Amino acid sequence: MDIVDRAERARPDFEAAIGSEWVLDGEVLAREFSDPYDNLEQPRSRGSYVLQPGNVEEVREIVRIANEHKVPLWTGSQGRNNGYGGSAPRLAGSIIVNLRRMNRVLEVNETFGYAVVEPGVSFAELNAHLIENGYALWTDVPDLSWGSVIGNTLEHGVGYTPYGEHADQVCGMEVVLPDGDLVRTGMGAQANSRNFHTHPRGFGPRLDQMFMQSNFGIVTKMGLWLMPRPEAWRAVWIHCETDESCYQLIDAIRPLLMDRTITNRVTIMSLMAVVPTQSVKKDWHEGKEPVNDEVRAIMRERFGLGNWNARIGLYGTPELMDVQQRLIEQAIAHIGGARLVAREYPGDARVEDVFPPDQAMAGIPNMDLLNFLNWYGFEHTGHVAFAPISPLTGDDGRTLHNILERHCGQGLGRDFGEAFALTARSMQLFALVLYNAGDTNDIDRTFEATAAMIRETAALGYGEYRGHLEFMDLIAEQFDFNDHAGRRLNQRLKDALDPNGILSPGRQGIWPTAFRPASGALTTARPPLPAAAAADAD
Amino acid sequence: MDIVDRAERARPDFEAAIGSEWVLDGEVLAREFSDPYDNLEQPRSRGSYVLQPGNVEEVREIVRIANEHKVPLWTGSQGRNNGYGGSAPRLAGSIIVNLRRMNRVLEVNETFGYAVVEPGVSFAELNAHLIENGYALWTDVPDLSWGSVIGNTLEHGVGYTPYGEHADQVCGMEVVLPDGDLVRTGMGAQANSRNFHTHPRGFGPRLDQMFMQSNFGIVTKMGLWLMPRPEAWRAVWIHCETDESCYQLIDAIRPLLMDRTITNRVTIMSLMAVVPTQSVKKDWHEGKEPVNDEVRAIMRERFGLGNWNARIGLYGTPELMDVQQRLIEQAIAHIGGARLVAREYPGDARVEDVFPPDQAMAGIPNMDLLNFLNWYGFEHTGHVAFAPISPLTGDDGRTLHNILERHCGQGLGRDFGEAFALTARSMQLFALVLYNAGDTNDIDRTFEATAAMIRETAALGYGEYRGHLEFMDLIAEQFDFNDHAGRRLNQRLKDALDPNGILSPGRQGIWPTAFRPASGALTTARPPLPAAAAADAD
Repeated sequence: MDIVDRAERARPDFEAAIGSEWVLDGEVLAREFSDPYDNLEQPRSRGSYVLQPGNVEEVREIVRIANEHKVPLWTGSQGRNNGYGGSAPRLAGSIIVNLRRMNRVLEVNETFGYAVVEPGVSFAELNAHLIENGYALWTDVPDLSWGSVIGNTLEHGVGYTPYGEHADQVCGMEVVLPDGDLVRTGMGAQANSRNFHTHPRGFGPRLDQMFMQSNFGIVTKMGLWLMPRPEAWRAVWIHCETDESCYQLIDAIRPLLMDRTITNRVTIMSLMAVVPTQSVKKDWHEGKEPVNDEVRAIMRERFGLGNWNARIGLYGTPELMDVQQRLIEQAIAHIGGARLVAREYPGDARVEDVFPPDQAMAGIPNMDLLNFLNWYGFEHTGHVAFAPISPLTGDDGRTLHNILERHCGQGLGRDFGEAFALTARSMQLFALVLYNAGDTNDIDRTFEATAAMIRETAALGYGEYRGHLEFMDLIAEQFDFNDHAGRRLNQRLKDALDPNGILSPGRQGIWPTAFRPASGALTTARPPLPAAAAADAD
Repeated sequence: MDIVDRAERARPDFEAAIGSEWVLDGEVLAREFSDPYDNLEQPRSRGSYVLQPGNVEEVREIVRIANEHKVPLWTGSQGRNNGYGGSAPRLAGSIIVNLRRMNRVLEVNETFGYAVVEPGVSFAELNAHLIENGYALWTDVPDLSWGSVIGNTLEHGVGYTPYGEHADQVCGMEVVLPDGDLVRTGMGAQANSRNFHTHPRGFGPRLDQMFMQSNFGIVTKMGLWLMPRPEAWRAVWIHCETDESCYQLIDAIRPLLMDRTITNRVTIMSLMAVVPTQSVKKDWHEGKEPVNDEVRAIMRERFGLGNWNARIGLYGTPELMDVQQRLIEQAIAHIGGARLVAREYPGDARVEDVFPPDQAMAGIPNMDLLNFLNWYGFEHTGHVAFAPISPLTGDDGRTLHNILERHCGQGLGRDFGEAFALTARSMQLFALVLYNAGDTNDIDRTFEATAAMIRETAALGYGEYRGHLEFMDLIAEQFDFNDHAGRRLNQRLKDALDPNGILSPGRQGIWPTAFRPASGALTTARPPLPAAAAADAD
């Protein structure tokens, strides 16, 4: 029996468990709970229907029913994993479990600086909750603030304040296991714990990270540390004219991150990562070819930008930030053409008083990046994220940029945005690659180029931080130490925790035995995903 | 067949695998690879013999042989887990696997600030390696520097620089699984990775923390981030006269840790945590009763200490530290009798120029704490660690101190040392409780008092950070959310990864099915551990 049939047979049980008004399909499934950047007429894969449970007990009941019917679920929090496949599942016909209804901020503790949230709470909602209730705490937001705090964190998502590594801010989770059991991690494994959200490790192994980028459980609650609102903060931009000066800047910033003169997640954005958030292509030139150097020069002047633009945040007393800023100025003095611009704000600045490009450094929600999708003026624009990790050096930056330029600029003939997001020792190159989602051929070309970049960067020793549905197997395939020992371990854990394989099979390339495709399928870049062939084992 | 018999039957295979000269027993087993603080004539549990493999392949071979013979191993790195049971196993007759021979510093990278070490490398050895080779990097050391960097880190051990949370500095491990398979975590799962020790997360779940405080694998290699040597650093001590001023200090320091004015792991030590490292009891008074207030007053004056003494480290340029120190002075201005003393050192100060109590703040190896064992002048002194975690408030400090005073001071009539080790939101109370290890009755009374404190603090919502062999089951028992769901999950993972249960059964209360004792045994505080009864299932 195929997945679609099983899903249909299970539907009445789900309706009885959570109420039929929370079982959605048809237009809303296609519009809201699929991949919004896929070809809408020929989607790669789509779920059978959507379940929206209202509480933890309903999530547990859903999991129990799925085990009975041996039908796969595909879980999302807000369901906005866009650029990586949105809400669409790996296996067509899977039942989408969407947790938007579980949207309570369960607790905010100002003394200890933490919030406890359910999966439906978005960054914008958490931010609004803090402001409305007068908490002197900041959120840390990713580029788009409509996403789920939990969903983003589970996917190793990042923001741009000193709390920008979201995975590192997690303190205490509640998780529904694939068999419906309910665990709390860390100190929360003690029922009356005073330490659940103040101390990250309990007695025995800490398992929080095991539930991130995996399909081992459904996280229904998470404690997340929040940054105390500083007395003041300063947005320090460094604009570089040339690619080479950007690479010099990367090397100059590394020691300042390592010694914690700079504590936020610094981002260095290409000109074309900024301009399309504030204008469209035809404002600048006719035609579809990538913008040339002449146009770039006009853009730089118009926006006061460089070809590369670093965004650094400083936090604390003005006196402290003065010292830190001087150290930064000294460190970049040797970089020809580097221009530093700083703006200072009080910690409680009103949003409307903060220059929009500075907002991310203070964890202020923003949606400007969505404008990117209007750049080409397609009726339906898609984008796919490509995000390799490298050591934090200018040489690695050059290598990655050149690969991107060759495949996207020269190969696809596209404009594309790039941003290096820095930790003290590594960086992610985020690349925004746009395509015409109304044109299957254009989608295919773009995905083929992305697959080629994944292979090429892997051959050089780089690895992806996160991947689109389409590339999860391809990326996992690159992690090849000892005959893919890492994948074998993940799959062994998967089978132990989820013997029927019902929870998000295939996520991050982790397949349960029950739904494991033939090994040849794992390296294919863009076949239509098999709906049920693999499930016939049952 | 019992464990001892199985071990004997397996011995020739182990000898063939690693060479009979690396299979140790007799006097060296008793002296070096047991619990040094146990009664030496009537030890609670002791291994059959010791295996010292020389490399990863030998570790894999040992694990394979143990599976064949279904005999439990008990792994230690340096084997100095003293205060928690030393090298002794949970199940008497287990084979001790000691990794001291694997003592290479495999790599040091100054650009990215990391070292890659094998399990036999001690903190003192890593520190010496850095100094000898002129690397401008610091170690972060725990109180005793003879322990293994890997061993301490796997047990959630801590030090006192800004890199004091050792578990958070881990980047990339190599692990032998219980079936002999070999995995690398994070980016290292890619064979040619450039990111193994610079970026902590790979694609899919991050499993490093799953291998800490567990028995799911043997870590044979670990990348650990090291702090770049600062231009200068400053030891800032705050001496408090009374217990109440200590609790006020805890509340005053919390905001400075949360906003990262202070970045090191601050420790607040009781007078009696310091004095016994530099003198013995009979220097101060005759008799065995705890030191009284009169003696304390003399001690304070002699050493220039308070009843409580906070140790804060500042790092960077003198200008930066001036600003930070002023913020600290402002924050403690309201605390009556609090006295601040600061000493500044260049980043590359010679060890002999650093006041010994300041050394930990710069990650300088030190063994002074061992002097503690001479305090009472017993021929054979033992100590047991008691280390509950609490939220970072003065009220919690008072509660924990009072429990300790009641059980150890009044109940046992002992002197005991205390130290609060702070993170931004939580603290560990480390208590050093001494006993006469030549007197079984004294051992038993001390362990009974410790068990009582574990139960009493758990009832109030505190949890232990780490536990002595004797208390692992008792502590695990306190983690009772949803009918001990956390323990059930750990045990399910254990059985999946280690079906024969050969790897350190019982560690942290995680028992494989193959060696799981009857549930009644789990809450008993100090029975002699069963040698083989539980293993008869086979």
